[in-house]
Amino acid sequence: MRVLGIDPGLRNLGWGVIEVDGSRLRHIGNGVCHSTGTELAVRLLSLHEQLTDVLHKYAPDIAAVEKTFVNKDAVGTLKLGQARGIALLVPAQFGLPIGEYAPNSVKKTVVGVGHADKNQIAHMVKMQLPGVDLAGPDAADALAIAICHAHHQSVNRMKVRA
Amino acid sequence: MRVLGIDPGLRNLGWGVIEVDGSRLRHIGNGVCHSTGTELAVRLLSLHEQLTDVLHKYAPDIAAVEKTFVNKDAVGTLKLGQARGIALLVPAQFGLPIGEYAPNSVKKTVVGVGHADKNQIAHMVKMQLPGVDLAGPDAADALAIAICHAHHQSVNRMKVRA
Repeated sequence: MRVLGIDPGLRNLGWGVIEVDGSRLRHIGNGVCHSTGTELAVRLLSLHEQLTDVLHKYAPDIAAVEKTFVNKDAVGTLKLGQARGIALLVPAQFGLPIGEYAPNSVKKTVVGVGHADKNQIAHMVKMQLPGVDLAGPDAADALAIAICHAHHQSVNRMKVRA
Repeated sequence: MRVLGIDPGLRNLGWGVIEVDGSRLRHIGNGVCHSTGTELAVRLLSLHEQLTDVLHKYAPDIAAVEKTFVNKDAVGTLKLGQARGIALLVPAQFGLPIGEYAPNSVKKTVVGVGHADKNQIAHMVKMQLPGVDLAGPDAADALAIAICHAHHQSVNRMKVRA
């Protein structure tokens, strides 16, 4: 089963795909969709096209998107929300079931603590996916989300079997 | 020239299409795309499909989307942001140039004051588009955005000619 993880962002939208075979994980691909420029609609369209290409290329079976951390920066929250709309839309257009995880939940699952920094996440992702070449911190986060989702899937399967 | 106005929202996304011929405006269509349910991605997908149908049916030439009012309700801002991402994406996918207007700017243009209430907006929309049958306050707002955009287009054209 292929799992796509997405770390949404307007400027940098990280993605990562892993193959899950029982408890074994294998890296398939990771990268970052970039959008720049002044016109918001054009940037969202660009993210939509880039992410659509990823789904066509890697054909994941399920997806997970990081829940956005809302804070006092309302303008930043709005920007992120708009990018997150695209991050949720694209896998839904491919008919994929989509999980959502808070950043702390991803960190707890992958690193073991809820307040791990970017370096710890990248380190643990490399440990779990030997030989992976990370396209950047946003791609590492996206792979961490995919790993988190794969873990929760297998836990749920064990619960169903028990 | 056909102008599409969009009032973004996750539960109710208003839309309105008008035909602009010089200074004359004519109502073409208006309505509200609804999304309900618990799964955010499914709701965004539903909005995307409904809004795509509107663009196929009415073939507007340009579009305008209301700028979201960001406030202290971060969760609400995020929800609206995600819906707004779809509202901007769909006309961009059809290659339409997209204008953005703050709510106060729309009200000033259509009603004459920046703090008009919903009833005043509906009243002025009906005055400018005689015989229009409004699908609700969100559709009235969307038509107001379209009227605002049409007005700004014609002002800009006059400036170019002067």
